[in-house]
Amino acid sequence: MTTTPEAAAPQAGSGAARQDGRAVDELREVRIHRGWSAQAEGSALIECGATKVLCTASFETSVPRWLKGRGTGWVTAEYAMLPRATGTRSARESVKGKIGGRTHEISRLIGRSLRAVVETKALGEHMITVDCDVLQADGGTRTAAITGAYVALADAVSWAQEQGHVPARATVLKDSVAAVSVGILPDGRPVLDLPYIEDSTAETDMNVVVTGSGDFVEVQGTAEGAPFRRAELDALLDLAVRGTAELTRIQQEVLAG
Amino acid sequence: MTTTPEAAAPQAGSGAARQDGRAVDELREVRIHRGWSAQAEGSALIECGATKVLCTASFETSVPRWLKGRGTGWVTAEYAMLPRATGTRSARESVKGKIGGRTHEISRLIGRSLRAVVETKALGEHMITVDCDVLQADGGTRTAAITGAYVALADAVSWAQEQGHVPARATVLKDSVAAVSVGILPDGRPVLDLPYIEDSTAETDMNVVVTGSGDFVEVQGTAEGAPFRRAELDALLDLAVRGTAELTRIQQEVLAG
Amino acid sequence: MTTTPEAAAPQAGSGAARQDGRAVDELREVRIHRGWSAQAEGSALIECGATKVLCTASFETSVPRWLKGRGTGWVTAEYAMLPRATGTRSARESVKGKIGGRTHEISRLIGRSLRAVVETKALGEHMITVDCDVLQADGGTRTAAITGAYVALADAVSWAQEQGHVPARATVLKDSVAAVSVGILPDGRPVLDLPYIEDSTAETDMNVVVTGSGDFVEVQGTAEGAPFRRAELDALLDLAVRGTAELTRIQQEVLAG
Amino acid sequence: MTTTPEAAAPQAGSGAARQDGRAVDELREVRIHRGWSAQAEGSALIECGATKVLCTASFETSVPRWLKGRGTGWVTAEYAMLPRATGTRSARESVKGKIGGRTHEISRLIGRSLRAVVETKALGEHMITVDCDVLQADGGTRTAAITGAYVALADAVSWAQEQGHVPARATVLKDSVAAVSVGILPDGRPVLDLPYIEDSTAETDMNVVVTGSGDFVEVQGTAEGAPFRRAELDALLDLAVRGTAELTRIQQEVLAG
Amino acid sequence: MTTTPEAAAPQAGSGAARQDGRAVDELREVRIHRGWSAQAEGSALIECGATKVLCTASFETSVPRWLKGRGTGWVTAEYAMLPRATGTRSARESVKGKIGGRTHEISRLIGRSLRAVVETKALGEHMITVDCDVLQADGGTRTAAITGAYVALADAVSWAQEQGHVPARATVLKDSVAAVSVGILPDGRPVLDLPYIEDSTAETDMNVVVTGSGDFVEVQGTAEGAPFRRAELDALLDLAVRGTAELTRIQQEVLAG
Amino acid sequence: MTTTPEAAAPQAGSGAARQDGRAVDELREVRIHRGWSAQAEGSALIECGATKVLCTASFETSVPRWLKGRGTGWVTAEYAMLPRATGTRSARESVKGKIGGRTHEISRLIGRSLRAVVETKALGEHMITVDCDVLQADGGTRTAAITGAYVALADAVSWAQEQGHVPARATVLKDSVAAVSVGILPDGRPVLDLPYIEDSTAETDMNVVVTGSGDFVEVQGTAEGAPFRRAELDALLDLAVRGTAELTRIQQEVLAG
Repeated sequence: MTTTPEAAAPQAGSGAARQDGRAVDELREVRIHRGWSAQAEGSALIECGATKVLCTASFETSVPRWLKGRGTGWVTAEYAMLPRATGTRSARESVKGKIGGRTHEISRLIGRSLRAVVETKALGEHMITVDCDVLQADGGTRTAAITGAYVALADAVSWAQEQGHVPARATVLKDSVAAVSVGILPDGRPVLDLPYIEDSTAETDMNVVVTGSGDFVEVQGTAEGAPFRRAELDALLDLAVRGTAELTRIQQEVLAG
Repeated sequence: MTTTPEAAAPQAGSGAARQDGRAVDELREVRIHRGWSAQAEGSALIECGATKVLCTASFETSVPRWLKGRGTGWVTAEYAMLPRATGTRSARESVKGKIGGRTHEISRLIGRSLRAVVETKALGEHMITVDCDVLQADGGTRTAAITGAYVALADAVSWAQEQGHVPARATVLKDSVAAVSVGILPDGRPVLDLPYIEDSTAETDMNVVVTGSGDFVEVQGTAEGAPFRRAELDALLDLAVRGTAELTRIQQEVLAG
Repeated sequence: MTTTPEAAAPQAGSGAARQDGRAVDELREVRIHRGWSAQAEGSALIECGATKVLCTASFETSVPRWLKGRGTGWVTAEYAMLPRATGTRSARESVKGKIGGRTHEISRLIGRSLRAVVETKALGEHMITVDCDVLQADGGTRTAAITGAYVALADAVSWAQEQGHVPARATVLKDSVAAVSVGILPDGRPVLDLPYIEDSTAETDMNVVVTGSGDFVEVQGTAEGAPFRRAELDALLDLAVRGTAELTRIQQEVLAG
Repeated sequence: MTTTPEAAAPQAGSGAARQDGRAVDELREVRIHRGWSAQAEGSALIECGATKVLCTASFETSVPRWLKGRGTGWVTAEYAMLPRATGTRSARESVKGKIGGRTHEISRLIGRSLRAVVETKALGEHMITVDCDVLQADGGTRTAAITGAYVALADAVSWAQEQGHVPARATVLKDSVAAVSVGILPDGRPVLDLPYIEDSTAETDMNVVVTGSGDFVEVQGTAEGAPFRRAELDALLDLAVRGTAELTRIQQEVLAG
Repeated sequence: MTTTPEAAAPQAGSGAARQDGRAVDELREVRIHRGWSAQAEGSALIECGATKVLCTASFETSVPRWLKGRGTGWVTAEYAMLPRATGTRSARESVKGKIGGRTHEISRLIGRSLRAVVETKALGEHMITVDCDVLQADGGTRTAAITGAYVALADAVSWAQEQGHVPARATVLKDSVAAVSVGILPDGRPVLDLPYIEDSTAETDMNVVVTGSGDFVEVQGTAEGAPFRRAELDALLDLAVRGTAELTRIQQEVLAG
Repeated sequence: MTTTPEAAAPQAGSGAARQDGRAVDELREVRIHRGWSAQAEGSALIECGATKVLCTASFETSVPRWLKGRGTGWVTAEYAMLPRATGTRSARESVKGKIGGRTHEISRLIGRSLRAVVETKALGEHMITVDCDVLQADGGTRTAAITGAYVALADAVSWAQEQGHVPARATVLKDSVAAVSVGILPDGRPVLDLPYIEDSTAETDMNVVVTGSGDFVEVQGTAEGAPFRRAELDALLDLAVRGTAELTRIQQEVLAG
């Protein structure tokens, strides 16, 4: 259930190596442990380098109140980080009694990304909640969560079809979806898949969510330092499309396994 | 203190008119009431069509704890909507006892956008908080907030320099910043500055924050319906750059007034 | 839609002028912008001197759970202040995660004051929520809120009757209601309609809510400094009755306009 | 430590008897168990008819942050009701996670009433918190709380002077304070000290806080049914002054005991 | 309604006296004021030495949602402490906006203890909530609460049977329940019923809940200092069984009274 | 870093096999992945059968405010469960905005258990927080958490000594600690280490925390069904002591590895 990506092999012509030896257009090693959880209807523990996210998809035979009686389903997501996923411990949001802005923002992003490839009508009045819990963080946790969440979601959909909750022939998933981060290093180079050490110093940080067919679901670019020019934006989008194509291939391989 | 934008005049060659008669690349009428508040160090009531946002900038002679003793300042923002800013009343977040994900997300976006043009070192250990309260909502509230917040911020910085809190010669503002929404209508046309009626049916929705010099601070594009292609993304960015250039001109006119 | 009150003209025989030049029994200039909001069923932006409160009335075709099935309606109110309505910025109650005692107290006062003139049976099982948001504060925000809220409420009731939600002939409003503050200055003079500068030093502070017919709905007097004698209480009530009679006249003029 | 009030004896000429046999100007039986708590610096369990409130005064050798360094003290109060103090159980505010508006309002009223008779400068930088917990409720809980809180406060002040925290000769208490409810019954009669059964049907409800010298600290009158006329207000104030004079006598007797 | 326990008489052969003169196997004086509250369906103010807990049992003709339609009832409990029940004032949990771990833990313990002797089927779809509010604390508040709560519960059950909510012949209470604390003093002696001064220095602290028949419902032992050996555990259990037998006798006496 | 316990081999004479084939006195297979986290100062992923708990120990060079200046350290723990650790998804406590009673109770239990073997003076003014996050739950999560937390704690202490934060020769850990659940099945048999299927039907449930030397730190027994007799309690304690001795052996093996 583990897949070593081809992208892990250095690719020619992509400039000087980075701190971890990768080429600028090279992904970190990706491992997806499909079915990691014995409890959830679908699950995946995804590792992108040292980033580890546990994604579990829970199928429920009901929908939120605002959807009742419309004959359509819903897919949502919740993202969270264990207190010591990072280099220093953070207080638990449950202890603080409220969810931070960043957590909310990422949960919403994952939910929108998954729904972009889901035919909610085909789900019937059922809901799938994908929990993405970061067990260890080294940059790119939200994009790893999306890529892993898709695998968990796909298995939960299959489960629901096998169980007869959803018609076996319904096309619930219109496409697949994967995500990656790209950014511009202080030396001006656009790079793919930033670990924490690069992410924390990048001038520009962009998360891109792309379907299996190569169209965009989300583009979220932020100038952390200097504003970015149109040409830089274009270079980042090129890298992201290349990276997500590779992730799509890995997802397919894992789901076929 | 009110400015009627030139963009309000229809522009030739921009395709079939929209529901409100505008060309696809035409802004709604923009009015910025500079100094609307008698209390704040800087303020602006910005109206973009029927969207009205009150922006007040509060100058404080201290910084958040994590910045103390570093000799640098901070600019932050809080966004909120009155309960009946919209067509149906929403429960107050203060009554619910927590801030929603959308509110958090937008507050963070405004804060990042403003900081992108602020030299926080030049501020000294002072903080400016810009509150953006939506009094009436008709689409584009977050982008109107950014455009108005810059005007309030600029006046608060001037006030602080006049009062001697910040050296008069310090260049606190490296550039100006403005924002606009763009989107793809169901008929496939990319359009500028969407009112609620367009926004709620758009296939793709994008908020773009651009400096006065024309570089990008934030690009946040989301496929609400079908994923978008690279060519569509490019068309949206072109529209956004045109719109923010016009908003920059209006800001300059208002601040010069 | 704006009305300059006759009370703004100095009245003879009311003693030495105050800091802002008014006589002791003189109201500040009152302006009521009826229908300020394009969204709400009824609305008014009321200005009493530099105090500005936006009142919006939202009509809903349901009632709180504890009233269901009783054939009677409900009117309630929520009061809040923008963070920079005052001279120094206050933290948002939504950010603090709870509503302060003062906010609760004023919301309840406004709701009770409005219900005192509403025939809730005549409303049928419908609810009207009046939001009173202080955009700028200079004393007397709760009393301005009540006076403005009545105008918004009256328009929401008319709207509901025009729309057929409430029978056109039903007498929903038994009377009108207005409110004003009165107080005793450190020099012992009882005065009408205190701005912040007077309010913050007054020995006694009293808010009085009076119907259009001149009867009392609420009398809330507090000794901030020395306790007050019966004669002082009587003088304050006289001033309040005079002030609310003037406000009632302005409400009638605005609603007739 | 218990005192049977003279007011409990029927007084001539005060009209027809009420449901509990009292004259319209007659208090319920008042019992004050001074020093009920073995833990607090001052305490009193006050019973007004079936209403029972435990008041404990806690002396602390510090003040709230906003008072630090000003050489002045503070007195504050917190009011709460046990879940089954009333005829049907209410959810605990600690379980609901927030304090209701009514609780806030009453806590603030008690605090203001006590501070009206305290010379905070004479306290030095010390704080006294008076907790008023309603063990059993039968109307008039907030006024019973004020009357009992004064006794607890007086003992805490004496304790602090005996312990040397406050100079023995300082006049911390400028006067005493007591409170009572008055109201207008559906039959039009103004009455003193309403139990729950009268309170729940009264047309007008008024709480009056009066010093030992007979001046007003708070007057809070609310029309629950029909608005009230000036003559009615005057009659209520007369009753309240008579009732608080009797309560003052009982306080003196208890504190002398 | 008050009962002086026989255990209050010194018992021979139980070793050197403690700080308060009791033998190691001697309870503090127990007083149970049955029916203290005029409002609740069952109530008891229990005093164990200086510890005073007010227990009120509220009968409701409904059950929590998760039990609906199952034909079975529920008994639950809530424990709380007044802010000045202890030697120094604690902040109210309602003000802090959340319930502490200790409070939660004790509420759950009391609920489980009561349910151990309740035949919930026999209750029908009704719920009894027992509130245990500590008015004064001197050690052993949770065990006093359980012992008192049983008395309140028994009376609420009788009330429900008299009112016909529960069949008169149903055996709702299978047994009685009482609780006591035991511990090991720093000098190594196991003792019964620890007041605060002993509790705060004990090496081991154990709360034991025992039915009227002498079987265990809960055993919660904690090493506060050195871990405890099996022999010590056995000695503590012996003491606890003796103490709860005495408490059971007092409960019977009070309920027969 | 993984250890297969000897206890996994069936032991003679312990009665009929259980649903999973184990003898009544047999532990489930235990695996401890020491150093699972690349971020924490100490960590262990413990698996007891299908129960998986990630324990991370975070070392901080400060102590809680109430300990400052006393020259002593602190060890605390936080327990939590991922939403889909169990058979059906639970709402996140961070989303609900408060921590449940069960979570609080278990966090406190783990903290007390660890502190029972820590010489806090020897830690100096440093704090270690052990987070125990249940990734998958199948009964015995709190006891697995304690057993795993000890391994994480031991490594964090070694790290602190290697880094020089704590003197290398200080004896911070006086002993080791491990925990296990025991219970009485409906058929009356006392058993060791209950998986969810046994736990949910057990008559009595007991968690026992024992030091490496075999003394008790915590004994928490609860009658879920019928109250338990003294002989049953004794049998459960015997099983628990046997089980924790085996867990102690595994901890030693893992830490020696």
